[in-house]
Amino acid sequence: MLENIINASARIAKVANHTPVMTSSTLNEELNCEIFMKCENFQKGGAFKFRGAYNAISKLTDEQKLKGIIAHSSGNHAQGVALVGKILDIKTVIVMPDNAPQVKINATRGYGAEVIFCPPTIEDRTRVCDAEIDKHGYTLIHPYDNENIIEGAASACVELTNEVDELDVLIVPIGGGGLISGSSIYAKLSGKIPIVIGAEPLGADDAYRSFVSEERVLSHVPKTICDGLLTTLSERTFNYINKYVDEIITVEEREIVEAMKFVWERMKIIIEPSSATVLAALRKGRASGSIDDNLRVGMIFSGGNVDINEFFDKIYAKIN
Amino acid sequence: MLENIINASARIAKVANHTPVMTSSTLNEELNCEIFMKCENFQKGGAFKFRGAYNAISKLTDEQKLKGIIAHSSGNHAQGVALVGKILDIKTVIVMPDNAPQVKINATRGYGAEVIFCPPTIEDRTRVCDAEIDKHGYTLIHPYDNENIIEGAASACVELTNEVDELDVLIVPIGGGGLISGSSIYAKLSGKIPIVIGAEPLGADDAYRSFVSEERVLSHVPKTICDGLLTTLSERTFNYINKYVDEIITVEEREIVEAMKFVWERMKIIIEPSSATVLAALRKGRASGSIDDNLRVGMIFSGGNVDINEFFDKIYAKIN
Repeated sequence: MLENIINASARIAKVANHTPVMTSSTLNEELNCEIFMKCENFQKGGAFKFRGAYNAISKLTDEQKLKGIIAHSSGNHAQGVALVGKILDIKTVIVMPDNAPQVKINATRGYGAEVIFCPPTIEDRTRVCDAEIDKHGYTLIHPYDNENIIEGAASACVELTNEVDELDVLIVPIGGGGLISGSSIYAKLSGKIPIVIGAEPLGADDAYRSFVSEERVLSHVPKTICDGLLTTLSERTFNYINKYVDEIITVEEREIVEAMKFVWERMKIIIEPSSATVLAALRKGRASGSIDDNLRVGMIFSGGNVDINEFFDKIYAKIN
Repeated sequence: MLENIINASARIAKVANHTPVMTSSTLNEELNCEIFMKCENFQKGGAFKFRGAYNAISKLTDEQKLKGIIAHSSGNHAQGVALVGKILDIKTVIVMPDNAPQVKINATRGYGAEVIFCPPTIEDRTRVCDAEIDKHGYTLIHPYDNENIIEGAASACVELTNEVDELDVLIVPIGGGGLISGSSIYAKLSGKIPIVIGAEPLGADDAYRSFVSEERVLSHVPKTICDGLLTTLSERTFNYINKYVDEIITVEEREIVEAMKFVWERMKIIIEPSSATVLAALRKGRASGSIDDNLRVGMIFSGGNVDINEFFDKIYAKIN
């Protein structure tokens, strides 16, 4: 598995952006530790999703590639898959809820994917997807319940550890669990980072409840602004998290927004709420003492896709 | 002069952030050239101003340092000077118009400076500043009409050319003319960049009019969202621009906002309107043909201080 990740990482590095690791002396002072932020908001498509998508899709057979691929997502996975489909010249279909924001529909179409709409329920999404697969023989690219997606996502952590030595802790957001599975597998099997912490919104804390109860929580009505962290774990990601993750810290919406505002205002980079959970979790862990003084802390900012149209509409209104 | 700049640059590098040079394949494709953006929005204090302020203030005599420094500004220069004052442990006074936004007052005070308010006219500002200097013997740190400020500002261009070879063109925003003076002096005297272009909002085009008429325009009622580019040239910066700058491209407010939105949305970094003028000018220069195909273009993003409180107030309202 470690070898798979290292191989995937080398392959992905040829097409993905080598995203920067950023630091903030203000933040280091505030939290009395050294913090290294791997900025996947600068990744192609605006999120780490490109990594897994490229790894999974590039490994398909020629016949699968010829028939095309399908994914259901209204978010970053859709854009990652569409972008890889474009790069590899593979017919790509994205199933989106019919209430998806126009900006995301446009972005996905902008990468050349066909968008098919469905009513906004999981049942409808699956039904429409299955029907398309039956009809056209597309291969489903699942956002996280897929070894190749997980191994591809791990490449962000590989790059972080290649660039930054002797990290004590890694903090990663948890949605469906793909990014933290890959990251924690690599951190532990390579021996490069001893402690891995998951960050999860309190309003979508299925992973936390699963982790604590040691039983995968399926009932889940998420209520959070972290639109990248709404999904539940799969059996596969639940098992990886149980095995390789040391702690899950849940954070409140207000803490997430405060962290996001800090990063925009002081670091001048745009991260989405899902990314901000890791800083909120670090602050919480430092305050509670569950994260020690003077540690070297790696964090993954998972993406930077935020709708800023309203903000700019106001500026346009001002100049007219 | 070249030697002064190189020396200043080495000194500044020890305390300033080494800001990254960013690229965007989307932008390169759109404009059919290779674009390298020196991101001073990531500089200490959120703008290039720290560079000149550090160079000028660190060179003061011990007696001057003991008596303290004063600057008038409601913007990035205030924060640059205040931050240097803090680092060098020098008493720092900033004169601000009494209608300055609370966020800027707080930021300046946050760096430990004393803020003195004056009515929002140039006459009042000068009067209050002069009175303080008479009373306390402070040294005035002018935002651009000062050789040390200009030579310090040039260090952004030095770092850009150290990192990126064979640039054909450099594009820099023009406000009071400090940044473009330093950058163009270095570009030309070092022989590293053959063409330097200034970018200016049409609504604050005193430099353009001065450049074209070969007579410094003093009457000037600026109307632009670029709050960093409202001031007029001094005799000193006017002379440097005449000597070392090849062209000034003026851009409309809509073009500036479009460029800024592109950078936020696609590059995921926060730049202020003044910074966006350079991308707007490049687009205009490419469309008009005054900037050729296939050139290697360097641009300086001067800063990233934008008030995002309203945007975040809306997010807070949503989660409550």
